[in-house]
Amino acid sequence: MAARVDSVPELFGSACAGDRAALARLLSLVERGGDQGREVSRLAHPLSGNGYLVGLTGAPGAGKSTLTSAVIGHLRAQGISVAVLAIDPSSPFTGGAILGDRVRMQDHATDPGVFIRSMASRGHLGGLSLATPEAARLLDAIGRPWTLIETVGVGQVEVEIAGKADTTVVVVNPGWGDSVQANKAGLMEIADIFVINKADRMGVDETRRDLEQMLELSDLGASAWRPPILPVVATTGEGVDEFWSAVLAHRATIEASGELARRRKYRLGEELRQIVTRRLELRARQLATGEKWERLKADVADHLLDPWTAADEMLDGIGG
Amino acid sequence: MAARVDSVPELFGSACAGDRAALARLLSLVERGGDQGREVSRLAHPLSGNGYLVGLTGAPGAGKSTLTSAVIGHLRAQGISVAVLAIDPSSPFTGGAILGDRVRMQDHATDPGVFIRSMASRGHLGGLSLATPEAARLLDAIGRPWTLIETVGVGQVEVEIAGKADTTVVVVNPGWGDSVQANKAGLMEIADIFVINKADRMGVDETRRDLEQMLELSDLGASAWRPPILPVVATTGEGVDEFWSAVLAHRATIEASGELARRRKYRLGEELRQIVTRRLELRARQLATGEKWERLKADVADHLLDPWTAADEMLDGIGG
Repeated sequence: MAARVDSVPELFGSACAGDRAALARLLSLVERGGDQGREVSRLAHPLSGNGYLVGLTGAPGAGKSTLTSAVIGHLRAQGISVAVLAIDPSSPFTGGAILGDRVRMQDHATDPGVFIRSMASRGHLGGLSLATPEAARLLDAIGRPWTLIETVGVGQVEVEIAGKADTTVVVVNPGWGDSVQANKAGLMEIADIFVINKADRMGVDETRRDLEQMLELSDLGASAWRPPILPVVATTGEGVDEFWSAVLAHRATIEASGELARRRKYRLGEELRQIVTRRLELRARQLATGEKWERLKADVADHLLDPWTAADEMLDGIGG
Repeated sequence: MAARVDSVPELFGSACAGDRAALARLLSLVERGGDQGREVSRLAHPLSGNGYLVGLTGAPGAGKSTLTSAVIGHLRAQGISVAVLAIDPSSPFTGGAILGDRVRMQDHATDPGVFIRSMASRGHLGGLSLATPEAARLLDAIGRPWTLIETVGVGQVEVEIAGKADTTVVVVNPGWGDSVQANKAGLMEIADIFVINKADRMGVDETRRDLEQMLELSDLGASAWRPPILPVVATTGEGVDEFWSAVLAHRATIEASGELARRRKYRLGEELRQIVTRRLELRARQLATGEKWERLKADVADHLLDPWTAADEMLDGIGG
């Protein structure tokens, strides 16, 4: 237990030197989001910006884990190291454990070039929406060249998180329509690349036509990039090379056009805005307790004070 | 157009003297929620507390407007005046107009003892959730003894608004299950009285049994009041007397037990908390503009500053 008293800078140094246990502990601090989590952020932020973030989202069962595992194999065959953050907002306390349906990723569990982590919010003020980019920045800062963010489903938070990557991949299956109906528009908006996984099944052509039609209707703006639609059979590895080539092509395109820098700047601005909002909300909850609050509430209930004037008094001095 | 320059206190005085146009203009100010809306609140709050608020909610088509109209007739036959606030959060800009499906309420449009108003948020910071109790308080303050709040459907905001009345009525129909499935639990929680409207149709007994079973499962706590289930045919007036007697019985029960005072106190506390939160949110949006914000965003994007430290600087001096 003596190791537990290592300071954050010590842990950070160890993680940079390749110590996986130190990295795991830093990620737990990020998930908790307290003062130590912020210390991790302060150390990581200046060193980040060289790694590249790929988000993968899609309905449960679409085969995102199998595709992720295939990508890991593809990168490891070239000696490139990679990290995976698995995001499941519906299971806030699975952190640190490999999820059941991600068991096949354990093929890579003993490979020092692979780091896999299930993310949990564990009390972070901003939940996984804020904890995930911080975790990705840590992996970037300690020298991981590629981080894959994989969500379990296509819920609002999951799409939001996956959409904040440098390249976002939406994984569908032949006949995808029904399973993602609720969030089709959200998925079209964030997709840089579509993968039709399980492309050995019936209905690939219809699915491709469906996606192409929706792309026609979407506003791609002045973007030079048109999301490709790639058939893959992740279980056999068929199409994985082509898929990863598309990721590299997208990266090259947005690096050259300045779009990557613009995206990252926008993301950091949004993150800052979110932190400011969360902290003000916390402040509001803190204000709604204590003696002054009880007195004002009683005055309002007794009709001595209207709620707006009471709110003024409550916010007095904090510029609300 | 000269009348438009009347001050808020002048309008308030006129409304107290029975001027309906002045009342309508005050309600528009409340809906807008700006400084003048707050002035209305400041005038109304000390004078309120004598009126009584009845909320009616139920799925679209359940016959709430017909029931409301029947209640108006019932009260007017006794010479009692009444106000109606019609809430439709899905149509934010219908304010002031009588909604299409509320046309039958126009029977009462020329009766000076009846005041009917469709509420819109029109930019109020807290939306209809905050504007509605303020409007009800204004009607109370100028001397309306009864205000009915009628929602169009059973969405979350609508149930929340109807649930903040002194007596809350949930209107269902025979075979009600499917139409309100999504919010059944929410409805059970707020109901003081159930009305089975259109009780001349098949399935009244099954619906009653269904509701009774759900009441058995609900935690009614130490409450002396068990929600009655009343068959009504609002179009013919059948059962309306019994329904209104139940409202009066509920009022007498919660007045005697102190529950009414407790409810009102809780509601005002919640309103205050909501105002504080909304104003802090507004403050966060205001902070996310301007020169300082742009500089901090640029520093974060350039990796000179981490987002948490930037948020600290942004919130510096406002205690966030």
